[in-house]
Amino acid sequence: MLLSEKISPDFIKSLDLTEKKQLCEEIRAFLIEKVSGTGGHLASNLGTVELSVALHSVFSTPEDKIVFDVGHQCYTHKLITGRFRQFGTLRSKDGISGFPRSCESEHDAFIGGHAGISVSAALGIAKAMQLEHKPGNVIAVIGDGALTGGEAYEGLNNIGKDAKNLIIVLNDNEMSISRSKGTVADYLNRMRSSRSYYDKKEAVKEFLSHTEVGKELSKSISGTKDLVKFAIYQSNIFESLGLKYYGPVNGHDIGKLIEILEIAKITNEPCIVHIKTKKGKGYKPAELNSGEYHGISRGNRTGLRSRSFSEIAGNELLHLANADERICAVTAAMKYATGLEHIAKAYPERFFDVGIAEQHALTFCCGLASQGMLPFYAVYSTFLQRCYDQLLHDAAIEKRHTVLLVDRAGLVGEDGETHQGIYDAAMLSTVPNTEIWSPFDETTLKLCMERAVYHSDGIAAVRYPRGLCPAGEKMGYSDHFLNGSGSDTLIVTYGRLSLYARDIRGADTLTLLKVFPIPDEAVNAALRYKRVFFFEEGMRSGGIAEKFLCRLYERGFSGKYSITALDSPPPAADVETQLAEAGLDRAGIAMRIKD
Amino acid sequence: MLLSEKISPDFIKSLDLTEKKQLCEEIRAFLIEKVSGTGGHLASNLGTVELSVALHSVFSTPEDKIVFDVGHQCYTHKLITGRFRQFGTLRSKDGISGFPRSCESEHDAFIGGHAGISVSAALGIAKAMQLEHKPGNVIAVIGDGALTGGEAYEGLNNIGKDAKNLIIVLNDNEMSISRSKGTVADYLNRMRSSRSYYDKKEAVKEFLSHTEVGKELSKSISGTKDLVKFAIYQSNIFESLGLKYYGPVNGHDIGKLIEILEIAKITNEPCIVHIKTKKGKGYKPAELNSGEYHGISRGNRTGLRSRSFSEIAGNELLHLANADERICAVTAAMKYATGLEHIAKAYPERFFDVGIAEQHALTFCCGLASQGMLPFYAVYSTFLQRCYDQLLHDAAIEKRHTVLLVDRAGLVGEDGETHQGIYDAAMLSTVPNTEIWSPFDETTLKLCMERAVYHSDGIAAVRYPRGLCPAGEKMGYSDHFLNGSGSDTLIVTYGRLSLYARDIRGADTLTLLKVFPIPDEAVNAALRYKRVFFFEEGMRSGGIAEKFLCRLYERGFSGKYSITALDSPPPAADVETQLAEAGLDRAGIAMRIKD
Repeated sequence: MLLSEKISPDFIKSLDLTEKKQLCEEIRAFLIEKVSGTGGHLASNLGTVELSVALHSVFSTPEDKIVFDVGHQCYTHKLITGRFRQFGTLRSKDGISGFPRSCESEHDAFIGGHAGISVSAALGIAKAMQLEHKPGNVIAVIGDGALTGGEAYEGLNNIGKDAKNLIIVLNDNEMSISRSKGTVADYLNRMRSSRSYYDKKEAVKEFLSHTEVGKELSKSISGTKDLVKFAIYQSNIFESLGLKYYGPVNGHDIGKLIEILEIAKITNEPCIVHIKTKKGKGYKPAELNSGEYHGISRGNRTGLRSRSFSEIAGNELLHLANADERICAVTAAMKYATGLEHIAKAYPERFFDVGIAEQHALTFCCGLASQGMLPFYAVYSTFLQRCYDQLLHDAAIEKRHTVLLVDRAGLVGEDGETHQGIYDAAMLSTVPNTEIWSPFDETTLKLCMERAVYHSDGIAAVRYPRGLCPAGEKMGYSDHFLNGSGSDTLIVTYGRLSLYARDIRGADTLTLLKVFPIPDEAVNAALRYKRVFFFEEGMRSGGIAEKFLCRLYERGFSGKYSITALDSPPPAADVETQLAEAGLDRAGIAMRIKD
Repeated sequence: MLLSEKISPDFIKSLDLTEKKQLCEEIRAFLIEKVSGTGGHLASNLGTVELSVALHSVFSTPEDKIVFDVGHQCYTHKLITGRFRQFGTLRSKDGISGFPRSCESEHDAFIGGHAGISVSAALGIAKAMQLEHKPGNVIAVIGDGALTGGEAYEGLNNIGKDAKNLIIVLNDNEMSISRSKGTVADYLNRMRSSRSYYDKKEAVKEFLSHTEVGKELSKSISGTKDLVKFAIYQSNIFESLGLKYYGPVNGHDIGKLIEILEIAKITNEPCIVHIKTKKGKGYKPAELNSGEYHGISRGNRTGLRSRSFSEIAGNELLHLANADERICAVTAAMKYATGLEHIAKAYPERFFDVGIAEQHALTFCCGLASQGMLPFYAVYSTFLQRCYDQLLHDAAIEKRHTVLLVDRAGLVGEDGETHQGIYDAAMLSTVPNTEIWSPFDETTLKLCMERAVYHSDGIAAVRYPRGLCPAGEKMGYSDHFLNGSGSDTLIVTYGRLSLYARDIRGADTLTLLKVFPIPDEAVNAALRYKRVFFFEEGMRSGGIAEKFLCRLYERGFSGKYSITALDSPPPAADVETQLAEAGLDRAGIAMRIKD
């Protein structure tokens, strides 16, 4: 057994090739066992076992910097760099993060929860190292999925020839979370499928330099040699962008990986190393359906969704689309996770998966809306942050009717601070012509979606949490619900917290279904109370609770007002723990009222 | 004289080629004369005269849709489509906008103030037209500068073969606002400089099909023909992205333009038409220095900046960089406009112009910061919106010390609703580990910048308005200034409004220099007043005034509180008018206090 707590970058370097192969197998088995227990991103991490071992064979962190993009492929790197013992605490409270985190280890060069930032970050690091005359290489490990995002391209476009210490490893597993989309993906496919292409290049070079026909060719038309040279040296998109290109190589062949990384290391210009890996490698269920195994929950080997908010929203969207042919659905590489597979199957012509390209997704929606279509953009709250400018500029000013299905709104649990959906309410309520709903069960989710379609004409956001969706009772739409019994104390909430608030004795409760603009009648209803407690599963600064206070105050409220909300994104833990620590669970709410 | 109020798309179509040439000259003269009077984007519009006439010769709006990216090249289009008579009202109150605006004309297919959205919008429009079985083409007109932005790439990457009605016109003028940056720009340069390249292609085709050597070649090695084909058909980056490519053609040759657009029109697949234009074409001062003539102010033919906030910030940054070699400067294609030319000249190795790539810019800053450098990112408030997610994810979580020089914060005047800098305070105050300063003169600008460097360790934003910067008196740093004379009425402001507030009689004034987190002592100082009036040159919802109220209330304030702020971005007018209409000028403030 090679895998033990003795594992370290130096230990890796001491192994011979056969031992490294064995170690990779051991790590793979370890990950399958552990991640099934802790939960986490299994498939992507099984894809990068050999790469991580190869990187630590060739490079020496922390002098060399590895920037993982997206970070959920860094588990082997974490094992190697001092976190073997803590691995059982992965993604749990006070444990190690599922993503790189520089406060956790000096070997984690940069944060990496959102896709597409690695090249930009690595370039900044590389420039700083040059300016500070620090030795070492910077390696950005980027998946083909992240390449569908604009920031990755912005980064690539900014690599000048002088970033000599920069290496981009393109970890090409032919899929991001769903399969990669767009023409870059097609392009990578073409390159993959023509392995012989490289042999051809050699053949042509050979041919041109040594055969009679080749000599004839070079002589007879002056332009042609340049042209063939162009074909040889400029024939792929990365080279078009001015990058030295190596590959593709099999990303599970540790020997070849080490070889090509050694070449990249001594290359005195920025280069790209294209490796092909298999998501879920070595674990059959994950290999066969890596989409389903992208992230798995603690103790859950199947990862099947049951009646989650996403699933119900997806079904309801299909239902709405049946009745209204204006309705389209757009996702940024989250077809399954957001429940859009139903409409995708029924109406493929009205379904658009644009890749990890949130900015494009929103502008594209506005283009659709400008012609009278009604786009639904289903997106995680945390990724919606990527299109704030597009909301303000493309959607709000000309009031393009666009429905946002804001999934994973609120605390998300084990993914930790990079993925918390706690900014959307504050963010969206700065955008003109925007309405925000926050359903808390199946009934209200459907009511809100219908409202967003038929009673809104600007940006209509329906935000709901990760996880299971309670059924709810049948009822008609109302933008707020007051549950009063004559108390002088009022609890105001929205979203899932409202289910907790209901159980609290000794206080009336006001639930906002429409959270912004805050319904006038809801504010009026709160006026008569002596004490108003607002509990918000979102950021305090700029959140709904602050705005509710302002509305109350404008109307002459003079009672006591208290806000319990978040001031920063909590690190990994389960959602219940995160809620409890913020004082937003049942016990926290009850305690606060009692005080 | 062909240019008259009779000008229309039909009129254009009725002209012969000679007349069209004459018309273009007349339009050019008209634009030079008018824009010198009205102010506006002269150089870019002089570059697109022939293109606009050619587009309206070949296509018929509004059935065909033209999406301009960035919109400040649309003046000729506006002249042609019914806005000749109103042209004198360009960019003024109740006048026509300097950008496309669908509420202004059915010929303006989509809004276009921010760069890089045209392909995404056009793709949405094209898809909708297909779904609705509407005939017509969609033409996105995009500059080479906008191509340095990630969203443009996301859009290009999403063009499938089925977007048959989509045409991208790449208006390549070798510069965006400063010169285009990055490897795509280099690539375009290579293509430009090898006009003969296209002849070569023909020569090779000829050669392969007709000569003996060519036949020999095709026979003798099976791989080579494919390779040469690859060279011919896949030899540029657009073709790599799967787009049919036409060009480059001279964008000032109306005959050639019409010809190539006619071909694009009948092409039954998405295509790109690459045209070369000259920014400022036909107006010598603008041709020679189109950067300076990018935008000119009303009645100002020189466009020279005097002592603007930008200029002073730029000089101060150089001053700080002299003393501290950690300091770097980053801009997204706004070197001159943000005053960064001084540091760029003195310390070229510490200056980075990343192109119109705001997302990359911020992440790149965080990369620099992670290695101990101290990046300053100078960016217009309106464009800072593009990197909200990067602020939250890359900068805030790991507390990367990054200074934002937020230029054009507040109302910007003639550029209108797409460019108003009224969201940054609300946006930035949702970001953890962030401090915001709002200086109002030269003294406070320098104090805030120094503060951001030496007394801050997270995101430090210094926001200041467009325009001239008053000198200010010498003084030391304080995060707020109370000017009291015993009144029971308090005016609270920040930024340039504080200069207006000072002049109001009968009220004390509180000026926030640090606007977020709101200084505790400033809140305490306000507690004793009976009436507090907050005036904010920014959005009400989520703005500083709302937050100040919440802080006051928490401390037991029970007086009257009034907020005067913005609820939507005002359309074009001069800044004074925009302030007055919002009740934020001297008269408005005085009136409000009197009531």
